[in-house]
Amino acid sequence: MLILITYDVSVLTKSGQRRLRAIARTCLDYGMRVQNSVFECEVTPDQYVRLKNELLNIYDPHQDSLRFYMLGSKGRQKIEHWGAKVIPDPIKDALII
Amino acid sequence: MLILITYDVSVLTKSGQRRLRAIARTCLDYGMRVQNSVFECEVTPDQYVRLKNELLNIYDPHQDSLRFYMLGSKGRQKIEHWGAKVIPDPIKDALII
Repeated sequence: MLILITYDVSVLTKSGQRRLRAIARTCLDYGMRVQNSVFECEVTPDQYVRLKNELLNIYDPHQDSLRFYMLGSKGRQKIEHWGAKVIPDPIKDALII
Repeated sequence: MLILITYDVSVLTKSGQRRLRAIARTCLDYGMRVQNSVFECEVTPDQYVRLKNELLNIYDPHQDSLRFYMLGSKGRQKIEHWGAKVIPDPIKDALII
């Protein structure tokens, strides 16, 4: 099933930037980054539980917002994209750490 | 039907900030802001066409990314939220202009 994950964090602080990188790294293990803070992950129910637990261990519940959208097995048909694409850059992310 | 709209724009430039405010104002006519660049709009098919056209007139196709997710009539049941909430503040948005 396709899961959409949107993550809202202030990147004005170093800790916020660090959390965004950690969230991105975790999501990239399961799917792709389609916008700076938006990820699409194709997962089994078991993988979804694991992914969610990993993300909930990273985010700050007092400052960040994390939303999960269950798009189902035909999720790709429900998406329309316009404009520029964000190219995932895990190497750059890794170097920034 | 519930439509999720995610918008990726650099807010490091004045023009990017202006476009984000304009996108937010337009989405708020049809729904709510759930994260800084994520909006959920409950619309009829006609309203969706109008909303999309309005947004496509605002965004910059060379710099911004705009994605639409069709969540359907039972969209609210497919969402899970964790952490802080973004409170929509149209008055503050209006004053910044």
